[in-house]
Formats: sequence, C-alpha cells, structure tokens
Amino acid sequence: MLPYHSLIVFDEKTNRPVYRFIANRLISLIQHGTLLPGTFLPGTREMAVLLKLHRNTIIKAYNELIAQGWAEAIDRKGIQIIAELPIVKPRSFNPVKNFPVSEHHRNGEREVNADHRFIPITEKKPDIVVNDGFPDPSLAPVEEILKEYRKYMKPNVLKELLAIKQMGGNQELRASTAKFLSESRGLNILPENVLITHGAQMAIYIAALLLIKPGDEIVVSEPSYFIADELFRNLGAKVNRVPVDQDGIDIAALTEVLRSKDIKLMYIIPHHHHPTTVTMTASRRITLLNLIRTYNLWVIEDDYDYDFHYQNSPILPLASADHQGQIIYIGSFTKILAPSFRVGYMVAGADFVSKAINTRRFIDLGGDTVMEAAISSLIESGELSRHIKRSKKVYQNRCELVCKLLTKELPHMVTFTKPQGGMALWLQFASAYPLSVVLPILAQHGIQMIGSAYYKGVNKNYNHIRFGFASLSEDEMRKIVSCLKDIAPKT
Amino acid sequence: MLPYHSLIVFDEKTNRPVYRFIANRLISLIQHGTLLPGTFLPGTREMAVLLKLHRNTIIKAYNELIAQGWAEAIDRKGIQIIAELPIVKPRSFNPVKNFPVSEHHRNGEREVNADHRFIPITEKKPDIVVNDGFPDPSLAPVEEILKEYRKYMKPNVLKELLAIKQMGGNQELRASTAKFLSESRGLNILPENVLITHGAQMAIYIAALLLIKPGDEIVVSEPSYFIADELFRNLGAKVNRVPVDQDGIDIAALTEVLRSKDIKLMYIIPHHHHPTTVTMTASRRITLLNLIRTYNLWVIEDDYDYDFHYQNSPILPLASADHQGQIIYIGSFTKILAPSFRVGYMVAGADFVSKAINTRRFIDLGGDTVMEAAISSLIESGELSRHIKRSKKVYQNRCELVCKLLTKELPHMVTFTKPQGGMALWLQFASAYPLSVVLPILAQHGIQMIGSAYYKGVNKNYNHIRFGFASLSEDEMRKIVSCLKDIAPKT
Repeated sequence: MLPYHSLIVFDEKTNRPVYRFIANRLISLIQHGTLLPGTFLPGTREMAVLLKLHRNTIIKAYNELIAQGWAEAIDRKGIQIIAELPIVKPRSFNPVKNFPVSEHHRNGEREVNADHRFIPITEKKPDIVVNDGFPDPSLAPVEEILKEYRKYMKPNVLKELLAIKQMGGNQELRASTAKFLSESRGLNILPENVLITHGAQMAIYIAALLLIKPGDEIVVSEPSYFIADELFRNLGAKVNRVPVDQDGIDIAALTEVLRSKDIKLMYIIPHHHHPTTVTMTASRRITLLNLIRTYNLWVIEDDYDYDFHYQNSPILPLASADHQGQIIYIGSFTKILAPSFRVGYMVAGADFVSKAINTRRFIDLGGDTVMEAAISSLIESGELSRHIKRSKKVYQNRCELVCKLLTKELPHMVTFTKPQGGMALWLQFASAYPLSVVLPILAQHGIQMIGSAYYKGVNKNYNHIRFGFASLSEDEMRKIVSCLKDIAPKT
Repeated sequence: MLPYHSLIVFDEKTNRPVYRFIANRLISLIQHGTLLPGTFLPGTREMAVLLKLHRNTIIKAYNELIAQGWAEAIDRKGIQIIAELPIVKPRSFNPVKNFPVSEHHRNGEREVNADHRFIPITEKKPDIVVNDGFPDPSLAPVEEILKEYRKYMKPNVLKELLAIKQMGGNQELRASTAKFLSESRGLNILPENVLITHGAQMAIYIAALLLIKPGDEIVVSEPSYFIADELFRNLGAKVNRVPVDQDGIDIAALTEVLRSKDIKLMYIIPHHHHPTTVTMTASRRITLLNLIRTYNLWVIEDDYDYDFHYQNSPILPLASADHQGQIIYIGSFTKILAPSFRVGYMVAGADFVSKAINTRRFIDLGGDTVMEAAISSLIESGELSRHIKRSKKVYQNRCELVCKLLTKELPHMVTFTKPQGGMALWLQFASAYPLSVVLPILAQHGIQMIGSAYYKGVNKNYNHIRFGFASLSEDEMRKIVSCLKDIAPKT
C-alpha cells in the first residue's frame, strides 16, 4: 500500500474544507501516476487512522473522487480508482517553480529585449524611494474618490453601470474627458475621439501596434522614453534618433532625417520631454507642424504630465493645431491622481479610435468602470481641476526647494536645468561620480533611486538620472542631498 | 481686423478661468494660420468690448500669450504676434471628428479582423441585458471591498503601498493567489509563478504574444472563445480546429492533427468550455496530458470560471497535473466579483512569468494596486471563499430555474445541455428561428442579447448563442421566455 500518510500532508491553516484537500491530493496522485488505475483505496476507517482525521472526512473525500469520475465503489470490495483510465507513465513530480521553460522557449523574434536602464528592485525595503516623477499619493483626493466609489458601488447602481461593457471606456468619462481636454488643451474633440485606456502606456501600445509594421522607419528623440523605445524596437521598427536641446527636438537634424528617409511615424514628447524635462518652444512647434504636414507623418504625441506646468500655463499640445488626423494625442489621469488610478486616454480621429477599440479587446476587455465613472464625476464637479491647482502649488514648491538644495550643496556633483514643469529633474552627474558608483552607495543608505538611469559608457556619454521630486518631503530631500555630499569623487 | 467676437465663442459653463480660454483660442488661431505673425492684437479695451468681457480678463489673456512666447508687447504700439514665427500655410480647420484616417492608414498586416459575432450595442438603453455569462454585480461584496479600499487609501498607507511599483502585481496578492490556487485547484505553486494582470484577457494576450510567431501552427476547439481566436489569427498563427462533443475536445481528431502537423501550441478551455459550456471528462484529460507530453506542446489553459461548478466540485485543471512547464494556466477574479474588478492572473514557470512581466510593461505599467491589495485581503480573510459559496448557490438556483423554464415553455425553439457549472447556457435555436430574426425582435422588446452569437450560415450550421443567466432575476427570465414564445417560426 502507498505511504498515504506521507503523500497526503496538509496545511492546517487552509480555508478550504479538509475533505476537498484530501480529494485533490488523491486526484493529483492519480494524475502523476503514483496512484494507479485499478488500485483499491484503503478503507475509510483505515485511511482515517493513517491521516489522523475523522472518518466522515475520508468518506466525503472518497465520494468526491467518485463524483468527479476518478473512482468507483465496488460492492463489498471498496473504492477503486477507475480501471479504464489510460495508464499515466509514472514520472517524478516537477513542482511548477522548476519549470525548465527556456528549453521549450521557441518564440524567437517575439523575444523581448530587456533594457539595462530598467533598475531591479532590491529585496530590502528602502527608507526613501526617489521615483521617475510620480505624483504624491498622500495628496490624492481619496475622500472624494471614495465618496464616488460608494455612490457607484450601490448594488443596483453597480448593476446598471456594468450592464453593458462600453469598449471605448465609460461613456460619461469619454464625454467629460473630451470637455476637459478642450478646455485645458484647446483640443476640438467629441467623445467619439476619445478612447479611455488602462493607463497612458496602453494607449501608446495600441497606437504603435496599429501604426508600426516591421521594417517601418520611425523617428524618436535622443534620449527618449525608454519603454516606448523598447516597444517600437520590439514591433520591428527601424528607429532613427534626433537629439534634444534646450528648446526641444533639433529641427534641423529632424528635417535632414525626413529628407533622407521615408519616415512613417514620429514619437514625440514636446511638453516636459521624458527624460530630459525640456519643453519645446512655440516657434519650433510651428515648424514641426509644417514638417508633419509636408511629410504626411503619423505622430504619437505623448503628453504625460501636461497639467503640471509652473511657469505660466503649459503650451498647447501639437494635437490642438490644425492637422489631418495624423497626430495621436496621449495623456493620463494617473499623473494627476496617483499611480494606483491607472486611467489614460488616446485622442484621435473617430475611425482610428474605433480601430483602437477593436484592438484593445485583445489586450484588455475594458477598464475599471467604477473608477472611470468616479473620475468623470471629479471632472464634472470641478474637483479634478481644484486638485490639480492644489497639488501643482505643492509640486512647484518642492521643485524650487530641491533645485535650491542641489545648486547650493552639490555644484561639484550634479548639473541640471530647472524644468518649466513636471515632477522630475534630469540630473547629470559629473564624470567623477558615475551612477554605477553613486546608486549602490545610496542604496546602502536606504535610498532607492528608481528613476530612469542612463549610465556612463552603457549609453554613450550619459551619466544622468530622472530625479522625481514631487513625492519627496523636505526632510527626505535633505537626507538624500547630505548622503550624496558624503560621496567621494572617483579619481 | 479679424471678427474676433465670432472667432472666440466660449462655453459659459467651463470650469477653466475665462482668460485661459481666450488665450487658448488666440493660440489656436495663430496655429491655424488665421491670426498671422506680425499681426497686432486689438487693444485690451477694444477687445473687452468685442468679447463683452472685463478688460482685466483680456489683459491676463494677452499676458498669457506673451508668457507662452506667442506674442510680445511693443512700446506704444500694443501686443504683436511674434513676427519671427514661421508662417503657417493657412488651411481650413478640420475638426478632429473629421479625421480622414483611412487614407493614411498603411498598417496593412496589423489590420485587425473585426468579428461578425461581436454584437454592436444599440443606442436605446435596453430594459433587460442578457450577457455572455457574467456574475451579478448586485451580489458583489462591495461593503467588504470598500472597507479594504478605505484601509489602503489612507494617505500614508497609500504612499507606502505605491512607493515601488511591483511589476508582477501586488506582492501580497501574488502570494495569496498562489495559496488560493493551490488550495482550490491543486496547483503546486509559489508567488513567483503568478503574474497578476488587468483581467484574464491580458494574460491570454501576453502568453500568446510570447509563444506565437507568424506561421506557427496552433490548435483550438471548434467552436472556441472568439476573442482569443481573433487574437491568434492577428498574431499570424495558422489555426487548426478540433470539434468539441459532450465530453470535451475530440481526442481522436486532436491526435490526428498532432500526428499530421508540427503543432506548437494548443488553446483549451477544459472546464465550462466557452462557448459550449461542456466540461471535459477525467479520462480525456489524462489522455490529453499524455498527448501534451508526447508532442511537447505549449498549452494555454483558459479556466475563466472554475469556481462556479454546481455538480459536486470542479475537476482539477490540467495545469495541476505533472507537466514540464508548458501549460500556462489563466484565470480571473473578475468572474468571482464583478466585471468592474478586472484582476486576472497567469500561472507559469518562474522564468516564463518574468518574461511575461517584461512584456507586460509595454502594454500596461501595472494594475490598480489598491484593488489588488483589497482582493488579497478578501482572500486572506476567507471572505472571497465565503462569497464564492454564497453566489454559487444563487447562480445554481438561477441555472435550475432558467433550464426548467426553457424546457417547459420553448421545447419547439431551443435545445441545450444543462451545464455542470458556469454562468451561461449554450442555446441552439431550431432552424425555423434563425438568430438573425430572433435577436432583432427581442431588441425591439427592449431585450438585448450580448452573448457570443453564432449565426446560421455565417458560421457553418450554427444557430447558437451564449445565454448568461447568472445576473438575471426570475422576473427577467420569465419576460424573456414569454417574449421568445410569441415569435412565430420562419416558414
């Protein structure tokens, strides 16, 4: 007889009924070929003793096996594993954690290029995290959001709300987003021009998927948002890079590329460029719009934190200008609220949006309708605008403060241009302080820098990192600065 | 002078300051080439009269233009649009809704195949919606969920929770999901084997993206879940179809296909198959497991509503058996809670999961951490299991009731096999009642059937539809049945 008492060992703390657990174990023993077809199980009394369980538990477990068609009761002989089951070749059990996947892995060109700039998360919980430039969750209007959640999660309201899945996103949110964008960004759009996505990244993904064919020539800035960059490469695009200076993308260099190659698409971040934080000037924008028309370019305009501009108001997006529908405008409410509220949007021509909706079904059957309805209410009530105004003040002060601190305390170590807006600085470290040295030291002191880092050598002559200040307290800023101050130059 | 009063018309109900609106309009006039470089704007007094606004508003709007670099103040002459701005070729303004996208649309093989089975949503709000088989939102444990939301959305808790984005999903949820699946499905897994996704669809998408190369031969059942089917075709897979009978997929036919072709991947729904609701028998599962090993197949096992089985307990998934890591197991919490709570998971080998995480970044930077943490708490507290138990009873009663009604009232019209579980019936309509006739009639009576429909002719000899009963009240069921009863046969 099998050593059931050692084969069936169970977790006391389980929520599941014990008989279910026993039955499941017996079934897996059958499936693994340990318990062979035709075998008679021990009598319920005997098994109860073996497993130190009440006999009724065993009886229920056996009935379970019979009910599921794994075993049958034979008069006066007991419970037998069905003999007709095809024999399973017995083999050692491989717990899933030992899956030797790579051996099977034949996905070739589907292989994803990991990016060295993607910083792995350390095991130990850090005291301070400096992110890529995220809003401060402790400023989020959680009470207002919870109030809305409570409103929409009343059983009948919820049933009503979810009766029909709106593939383009919650109807009210599409409408209020169209209104919000028309007022704040001078876009002239209708709800049908808006696709609500699960974060801006999904909007970038869908736009790229619809527009990029393997071998297509595209243009991005150098440097550019690295996840989008990886995405385009993984879709098979040939990526041309045009440098960014203090006024935005280098128009002369761009023109040269457009002249020399058949460029299909441009990915651009004119406002608080990622990673450099540069905002493109008005005159360059107009030249760019002319180039877009002349070369009939598709454009993905990524405007991830438009609403947080500190010097006067933000400059209107390219998509607000007259164009033939080739500018796909992408933004997010996540940057306004908090990283947990992943609601982004794509603005495009109605038929492009309907194509995007069709594609989106493959990726994601829809967003969190309750959250979408809640955000729509926040827009309609004006709470979203009030929240933007409130938090913008806080971020602006934090920006001033961190810039002062760095300029005063670390002139020998870091250089940067104070951004016109956004939630991060683009810090260049002096060559005597390579990030490969600085970041581990900070980590040792419990300071985790998770912003996009461009290491010296690995990325040409970079030695830069995105320094998200928006969610840092003054105290945290001072700690980071004093920790940096203690680092000795590499000679 | 330009007819500013007609060019600048604004919405009284805007949340935005009026001066911002005026500035935005003037900027778009510049961008559209209506307001030409070098033009002097009317004096602030004059403009105030033109637009019937207070002069200070105009002054602020003009300052805005200057601040944004669109205009400059010329001594004793007024405000001039910067002359150095490159001239924009004037052209008629095309509102975004008129984007002539198709003309530009050159994405060829990226074109998405729309599916005729995807039923468009009617404008008029229906009285009753019969879905594809979704849970009843009014049963969802909203109070418990809101309690958890409130807990995790306390400012500092939230900040802590969101400090570092867990790309694989909230750590606690990965751990409790591993525990939940081990207990309920006999899987033997660790948190590292679990990827939390924004709904099961995203898990299917990522698995397919990693495994399917254009030209790869794959196997699916006939019929099969149509969105997955479209996805595979869009990824360039050659799709082989094997019929489903009352015991599940036809093993003999499958073996034949495996013998004759180099099949890389199989997509299968052994438990409450979609759309047919059939549950695969134990003995077929064992044969199937042997075939998977013999032919070294990749398998995507879609187990979308495992937890709602009415006859005894559900049969353990294929992934719970001994395999070499080629079975990717996919499930969802959405079907347990409500369509708004889009949290799904992929279970696979640790290195497959890490590849999936890397790919997921392109599509979606992460889930709703608060919701994920809340669901984890529901699992740990046992509330999720209690909710499953409660709602399962309700759905089982609704299943009994709808089956009785249909058998009693509509024997001449519909045939079906009572499912062992799940939230939908697979209704075959007699050929005298083609869906193309029945569905519009129902719609006229305010009954919208949005379940997957397989129309006669379009899909071979089908005349079937998924009839989701789980969220229907007895009253609604009776209304639908009596409405169907009045439909005359097509002669």
